[in-house]
Amino acid sequence: MSSIDAAMDYVRTNEERYLAELKEFLSIPSISTLPENKQDVERAAKWLADQLEAIGMKRVQILATPGHPVVYAESLEAPGKPTILVYGHYDVQPVDPIDAWDTDPFEPTIRDDNIYARGASDMKSQIVAQLKAAEALATQGGLPVNFKYLLEGEEEMGSPNLVPFIEEHADLMKADVVLNCDTGILGPDLPAIVYALRGLAYFELEVHGPANDLHSGTFGGVVHNPAQVLCDLLSGMHDAQGRVTLPGFYDSVRSLDTEEREALAALNLSDVKWQALAKTPALWGEAGYTATERAGARPTLEVNGIYGGFTGEGSKTVIPAKAMAKISMRLVADQDEFAVREQLDAYLEAHAPDTVTWSVRQLAGGPGAIMDRNSRYMRTAVSALSEVFGKEPIFKREGGSVPIVGTLQRMLGIDSVMLGFGLPDDGIHGPNEKQHLPTFYRGIETYIRFMASL
Amino acid sequence: MSSIDAAMDYVRTNEERYLAELKEFLSIPSISTLPENKQDVERAAKWLADQLEAIGMKRVQILATPGHPVVYAESLEAPGKPTILVYGHYDVQPVDPIDAWDTDPFEPTIRDDNIYARGASDMKSQIVAQLKAAEALATQGGLPVNFKYLLEGEEEMGSPNLVPFIEEHADLMKADVVLNCDTGILGPDLPAIVYALRGLAYFELEVHGPANDLHSGTFGGVVHNPAQVLCDLLSGMHDAQGRVTLPGFYDSVRSLDTEEREALAALNLSDVKWQALAKTPALWGEAGYTATERAGARPTLEVNGIYGGFTGEGSKTVIPAKAMAKISMRLVADQDEFAVREQLDAYLEAHAPDTVTWSVRQLAGGPGAIMDRNSRYMRTAVSALSEVFGKEPIFKREGGSVPIVGTLQRMLGIDSVMLGFGLPDDGIHGPNEKQHLPTFYRGIETYIRFMASL
Repeated sequence: MSSIDAAMDYVRTNEERYLAELKEFLSIPSISTLPENKQDVERAAKWLADQLEAIGMKRVQILATPGHPVVYAESLEAPGKPTILVYGHYDVQPVDPIDAWDTDPFEPTIRDDNIYARGASDMKSQIVAQLKAAEALATQGGLPVNFKYLLEGEEEMGSPNLVPFIEEHADLMKADVVLNCDTGILGPDLPAIVYALRGLAYFELEVHGPANDLHSGTFGGVVHNPAQVLCDLLSGMHDAQGRVTLPGFYDSVRSLDTEEREALAALNLSDVKWQALAKTPALWGEAGYTATERAGARPTLEVNGIYGGFTGEGSKTVIPAKAMAKISMRLVADQDEFAVREQLDAYLEAHAPDTVTWSVRQLAGGPGAIMDRNSRYMRTAVSALSEVFGKEPIFKREGGSVPIVGTLQRMLGIDSVMLGFGLPDDGIHGPNEKQHLPTFYRGIETYIRFMASL
Repeated sequence: MSSIDAAMDYVRTNEERYLAELKEFLSIPSISTLPENKQDVERAAKWLADQLEAIGMKRVQILATPGHPVVYAESLEAPGKPTILVYGHYDVQPVDPIDAWDTDPFEPTIRDDNIYARGASDMKSQIVAQLKAAEALATQGGLPVNFKYLLEGEEEMGSPNLVPFIEEHADLMKADVVLNCDTGILGPDLPAIVYALRGLAYFELEVHGPANDLHSGTFGGVVHNPAQVLCDLLSGMHDAQGRVTLPGFYDSVRSLDTEEREALAALNLSDVKWQALAKTPALWGEAGYTATERAGARPTLEVNGIYGGFTGEGSKTVIPAKAMAKISMRLVADQDEFAVREQLDAYLEAHAPDTVTWSVRQLAGGPGAIMDRNSRYMRTAVSALSEVFGKEPIFKREGGSVPIVGTLQRMLGIDSVMLGFGLPDDGIHGPNEKQHLPTFYRGIETYIRFMASL
């Protein structure tokens, strides 16, 4: 029996325990953005460190940062074999709107083939699948490759301390390839590998008018309402063709060539499928591109949140003193997240009326990335997925941002293999987030085959 | 000594107690829009009923409505004299943003010549001033006119139950004139009488896109963001000249004639003064009109509140499933608040894209009103103000809405005299609301002179 087959036997024997441990991890409300969950985030780090110890990893450490800690571990006992730097994050998104959840986001609940919990797909199941693959292999005479672990607790808040951490621990981070599990495939029977990621630039824009909230009867028609000005400014950030109007926004965007457009079309993700996924009345976006092209290869600008004035029950006739929006841009190669900040400022300087003042604060940001589809590691990942799913994976561009991929490319010169087992309908960041359990188990097998074949 | 002088002596002797009772009333957080304050609203009604009993009013009753109760009382012991229907409201606005208050909104605090508390100006001080005037007169051989009281607890929520209440109690409401205290003057030495009020139509607009919040990385550029659509819709409700674009919005607006424009100009409320009052970087509004004209005689549309997506600390990369705005229109004669609802619907039907769905709910509304400046009651009010302030009051149009004025005009055919003693910088509906105490005492004297001279 090959070590892969033996490892898979071990997985089947331990399936129940694996699931119980996943539930344990999902029960920890490790919401990194909320101060009141700070201890929960620490608990999640401790839980991971214990798991890494248990499967025999060495130098297991919870390394402090100015924010939430990084969990590090390593196993360098496979001489002549490459070193994988496993990246993951153990923090999760907030749960609001909490009323929209069918079950408690931190009481993992299995319905049909899915486990529902905040962080189920993004990305605790992916971390557990990878750990359990390593555990199974370790029982078969030791690990077949060298491992390092970089498991952060601040991804969902934009990884504010990760770049300095990597700078400080550059020696620890040396590796041949990054295995990044913060990703997914296209369907239970549609394996895929992401080879390009969008970058992110996330801002908070405040518009200030009168010093205090005013009575809209007394001052309506006399004062420029900051909520109205904010709407004007946000509305003007797209033109009638759905293009972003920030000056210079598209200047450095790498355009899609015919070959890549054909490859994206071959994904066969029709607008009808996109609309069904989004459960929305109709699709929308930049003219001249398919939904798949827009989601993967075109930059966008979104209003992630907006707030101003009276929003409680009933009516209050107020002109708010200020209004706020959270806006973010998804960036594609070769856009620069620092240039985008300047473009936003230039837009606001040109368009904000002198009846208000405004301020912008950057909350998160990171570069996009494109990887070599023909590297040794990418080919091994393709083989592993093909064996488990019985078909070749599709290469795809990802609309989301995994800034660490571009960051590690830039800082350490290491490419990532994106190998994770979320599904497009998992509802990440929204209510009723889930992980498809059969895909979770296929993920464990894929990781085993990938690790054993390098 | 005249009964007026004797009543004024009584006021001076009882000044301290009057202030203590005002503080007591201001300490009751009678916020009508918040369910958790229901008992406080009831306490405020009880407090008023006790006061009315104490000054000798008859048939004091707390009359139930489907919402908060109406306090009624009467004194019909001055045969041959007119009957005044005193209108007031004992409820107050919510206090958010609470952090912007220098002292607790329900711990009335005196600084310099002002008393700070929610409801200080709008309108508990006005109610107390009027009650204390009646109390002082009652001690001088009985009340010189007949009184009825209509004190409601739902004005700040749009008086949803007042019209049916008046219909049901039309007999009780019979009177010669309404004394409406829910108003103010232009400055401590600038007496004024409001003779025109703007109407109000207040709506909540919801825009719905995807069934759930979505990840802006996965779906950004593919789904029409409801917060962005809401901004587009709100932004389009004004044109570049600051005019409201709802179809037909200006059709029935009574235009300002030269005489009235001259009268408004004579108020000498320059744009500089308006800007200082509003503490805002620059004024804004409909082209072709002065600030005073816009505030009093032109209709407006305001965004009173806006909300959607993630608005907590930090960043969350979400496309919200829905976004909401509270918008209200101030209406002038001869606009109809029901027609405005149709104009809003027509605008949304014309401009909302088919990528979203939307819904509108009316939260409040009421007609505007214009009163005869030469009625017997108006002339008595002018004399009372002139005697107390040493100068003639200015006739002014009010930007705010006191729907009861138009409602009583429409339903019972009774005009109102607007006589109240708020000041433009009292900060009503905002943080640090205050009442100027010397003006409060002048108010008591004005009410005494008005009542004694009818």
